[in-house]
This record gives sequence, structure tokens and C-alpha cells, in this order.
Amino acid sequence: MYLPTLDDVLTAHERIQRYIHRTPVFTSAFVNSLAGAELFFKCENLQKAGAFKARGASNAVLELSEAQAARGVATHSSGNHGTCLSYAAERRGIQCTVVMPRTASEAKKEAVRGYGGRIVECEPSMSSREAVLAGIVADPGAEFVHPYDDPRVIAGQGTCARELIGQVDGIDAVIAPIGGGGMVSGTCLAVSDLASRVHVYAAEPEQADDAYRSFRAGRLIADDAPDTVADGLRVPLKDLTWHFVRNHVSDILTASEIEIIDAMKLIWKHLKLVVEASSAVPLATILKNRDLFAGKRVGVILTGGNVDLDALPWRQRSSARGN
Amino acid sequence: MYLPTLDDVLTAHERIQRYIHRTPVFTSAFVNSLAGAELFFKCENLQKAGAFKARGASNAVLELSEAQAARGVATHSSGNHGTCLSYAAERRGIQCTVVMPRTASEAKKEAVRGYGGRIVECEPSMSSREAVLAGIVADPGAEFVHPYDDPRVIAGQGTCARELIGQVDGIDAVIAPIGGGGMVSGTCLAVSDLASRVHVYAAEPEQADDAYRSFRAGRLIADDAPDTVADGLRVPLKDLTWHFVRNHVSDILTASEIEIIDAMKLIWKHLKLVVEASSAVPLATILKNRDLFAGKRVGVILTGGNVDLDALPWRQRSSARGN
Repeated sequence: MYLPTLDDVLTAHERIQRYIHRTPVFTSAFVNSLAGAELFFKCENLQKAGAFKARGASNAVLELSEAQAARGVATHSSGNHGTCLSYAAERRGIQCTVVMPRTASEAKKEAVRGYGGRIVECEPSMSSREAVLAGIVADPGAEFVHPYDDPRVIAGQGTCARELIGQVDGIDAVIAPIGGGGMVSGTCLAVSDLASRVHVYAAEPEQADDAYRSFRAGRLIADDAPDTVADGLRVPLKDLTWHFVRNHVSDILTASEIEIIDAMKLIWKHLKLVVEASSAVPLATILKNRDLFAGKRVGVILTGGNVDLDALPWRQRSSARGN
Repeated sequence: MYLPTLDDVLTAHERIQRYIHRTPVFTSAFVNSLAGAELFFKCENLQKAGAFKARGASNAVLELSEAQAARGVATHSSGNHGTCLSYAAERRGIQCTVVMPRTASEAKKEAVRGYGGRIVECEPSMSSREAVLAGIVADPGAEFVHPYDDPRVIAGQGTCARELIGQVDGIDAVIAPIGGGGMVSGTCLAVSDLASRVHVYAAEPEQADDAYRSFRAGRLIADDAPDTVADGLRVPLKDLTWHFVRNHVSDILTASEIEIIDAMKLIWKHLKLVVEASSAVPLATILKNRDLFAGKRVGVILTGGNVDLDALPWRQRSSARGN
């Protein structure tokens, strides 16, 4: 198991610069007053392809040799990683194959196709995903880029926190949502060396709390088919990301479904930003742990903005017009 | 009738600087490809109090003498102007009274109160609004700040286009939604002197097209109780704004309700920005007038982001969760 280092983050940042946005940092006086802290929202919802995963995917794609690149890349994903890998592959002019469950929404398939990705359908189970992917990697042959259990991907995700530290002076803590742990691992890497006084917190839905339970138990515990509105966070930690979580994360905080949805609406209403439910988990945990963050300067990573606008997780009043 | 000048815009800009954000300009490669033009979205949805009206309201409030300020300000509004005037008054530490129809939504009343504004209810008609307001202006006495038919307000709104011209090189046109015409008038002022080669377009809902019909007829025509999803644009032009529209606007373009809603969703989906329906009217007209804007560099003013998230103008699929 190769453990990526800060050097890998710095190299990644230089490599992917022309593929990604240096996303802005937003603040809201109103949200700060609710939180009793100064929150600095790092807007990865405004990233290329709408999610921070463009960073890791771009790093993986750009690191390939010409010979590897000629065979293309492949992954399994029902969310942002598939879209972002397609984006990066299209930019380099190579093929990208995404194994997606046949039950994935048309919107998600459309996003992959929009960046030139080729979709191969599988059954909606992890074993089917992995079997179909293995077939593609074997023949015709393609470089597998895992959504998070991959040092190239983690190094790429670390560029986000590295930017944030440069954009906000005197930050006390950074908090990011945790699913597979790619963003949190990259954040640990960037923060532990560049700004070692900064605490890293991970925020997780109560209904998909494998990282929380693993952290408490001191050993990796897999989740049993978690379900949460924060659909980007349904995946489990793996060995590589568990290493960073166990060794560098100050704490893991959880939030209920309603708390996540309320925080999501708060961000939409007061920051005027379209963010995914996953992006709202950190704010939800900050608002229920006010003492922990009181008076602190906290970087909050808004991980993505790819939302199905036709199926929002809160009820609409019937006064809404149809179209 | 005092006609504000470019000097008034420049003075306003200096005066209100500490009250307002210099809002960013966003672009979307995808939206550009749809439009066949380079669009530069000026994000007044990210402005203080969520709308460009913070500019004009701040200018009016800051221009008051100490004696005037001591009596406070008043207006009638069911939308952003009341909220923004309350914001500016609170910042200066003076009282603001907003006459609102008793039928206005609780969300709108809450926004006014959130900035310390005092609400006086009236019947939902223009005559009731004006009568109640006149009473307040007479006794106890307050400075009336009209939402747009006021040179101080127009000069303040002009600071938005002045920023935009400085933020984007070689702009060919600026397009803004038109309701009462305050933003369009201010834009004309800023553009006609600072960048006289830049065309100014106004975008209007078909269902509230008094400006369009006035422009075609060459005389001011009032609308008859217009109804549109773009609720910020239901108000009519007045003499002062008609002056600027008639003399400086290149053309007025209109869009249907469905076109406006589609453009709104496009902005939410691809720019990841929460904007009001009113803000989407310019993009809707650009997409149906592709020849007019082909290959041009166009500034598009996103006027505000104060949306009722519980009553969006498009249908939600039943798969949405309740909370």
C-alpha cells in the first residue's frame, strides 16, 4: 500500500492546474451568527464537472504514461467520480468507461455521457460492479481509477485544502464530509504538514456512519447497505483512507437526515449556492456541536453541486407552478 | 425631474462601498455552448441581502442628511427593495418602515424583520399601498425611497454595471431584466459614458411586457395587473426610468413563462447558483435570440437570489423525501 505524501499533493496541484478551478471561498454573516463561529465555505460545487472529484480524477488521468493513456481509464461509480473521470479523460483525449448500475438515474448517465464517457451497465450490487469492471480492465484493457482508494486520487483531493489554507488566514479547523474518505484523507495530508495546528474533522450521516463507528472502535468496520439523502456518502472506508482517518482526524461528527436537509436549505437560502446534500453534512454537525467550534475560524468544504433539481429532498408547497 | 448622471454613479459607488459586495462574475462553458456566445454572469444574487437593490437602497440611505436620517426611511414593497432598504437602514442605524400587502408571504415579511425593518400592512392594491405610505411619510415623518423612480436609487444600481465593465474586458453588450427599470436605467448611465460601444438590452416576461410595448409604441404604456413567475418584474416603468429606456436601450426582448423557468433551472444546474426567476429572464431571451448575440461577449446581470425554496416554479417528482 503506497501512502501518498504532501509532495504528491504539491506535484498533483501543479499537474492539474489547467484542468481545475481554484474555487472561491464564501462566507455568510447570517450563518456565522447561527454557528457562533467564522465559517469559510470552500466552493467545490463550483469546481469543473460540479465536484471536488475533478481534482483526484484529473491527477490520476494526467499521471498516466502515454502507453497507459492509450488504453483509457475505467471505474465504477453511480455518482460524481464517474462524471469527473469522464471530464478528465475527455480533456486528455482518452477513453473513459464507467460501470454504472442499470438503476442509476438518467440524469447521472447523461452527465457521464456529456463528458464523452462510455457507460457499461451492471446489476445494482457491489459484486456485479466489480465483476463487470474487472472484465473491462482485463479486456480490452483500461487503467482502473478507484473513486478514493487510490493514492493518485487522494493526492489530487488534497489540493483543495491546500488552496483553502492559502485563501483564509489563521484557520483553526477544516471539516469535510466523509464517505469513502478520499477528500478527508487528502485534507489530512495537506493540513498535517502545511498547517499542523489545524484540526481536521470529518462529518458523516448518522445513517451511513461506518467511519464514525470505525473511529470509535479503532478498527475498520464496514457498513451494511447504508441509506442516506447524502448519496455521495454511502460508500465505505477502505484501507488507504482508514489509515489517514485513524491517524490524522481529530473527530468524526454525525448528523441526522433532517439536520442534513435543514443545513442544505440553509446553504441554498443564505449562500445562494446549489449544493448536494452531502455538502451540507459538515454544516449540520457544526450547528449541533456549537461548543466545539465556538469562536473558531473553520474551513467547510462544500464538496459538490450535482443535484437532481426535480427531486429535492424537501417538500414543495402546492402553490408551485408546473412547467 | 432630476436625471442622474455618471457622476452620480461614481459618487454612489464610493459612498456605498462599505455597505455592498463587489460581486463576482461567473461563466459556464456549457451555457456558452448553448448560447453560441460568451456570457459573463454578474452575481447580484450574492449581493448583501440577496439582491442588487442593496446598491440603490444604500445610496439613498447614505445620502440622507443627519436631520433626514433621524426621521428614518419608508417604502412600499412586497419584494427585494423592502428587504434591501431595511438592510441599509439597519447598517446606518436608522428606522425603516415597509408598507407590505397583508397577503405577502411570511418569508418576505421575515426577511424585512430580519434586518430590523418595521412592517405596516396594507390591502393588496397599489392605491392602498400608496395611501398607507403617504400617511407614514406625513406623520410621524420619514423619507420615502421609491424602489426605482428615484435618482439616488438609479445611481446606486448603476454601480453594478460599472463594476462589470471593469471585471470583463471587451464586453459587447449588457443585458438585465426590466421591471420598474431601475437596474436598466443605472446600467444605461454607467455604460453610455464609460463604455459607449456597449449595447444595453432589457429582458422582460411576455406576461408583464409594458416596457416592450412602450418601447415599440414610443410612449409610456402601463400594464394591466401583470402576472408572471418573475415576481420582481411585475411593476411598471415610471417617467424617470422610461427616459433611460427610451433613449439608451438597444432593444427589449421578451420570454415566455416556460422559457424563463427553463433558463432558471439551467442557471441552477450549470452555474450552481440560486437565482430568482427574474434573474433568468435575460438568459431566456439570449437563448431565443441566438443570432443577435452570436459570438458576442455579453454581461448578464443575475439580479437576485431570494427564492422561496418551498415553492419552486417547477414540479418535483414524488421520489423527493419529506422532512
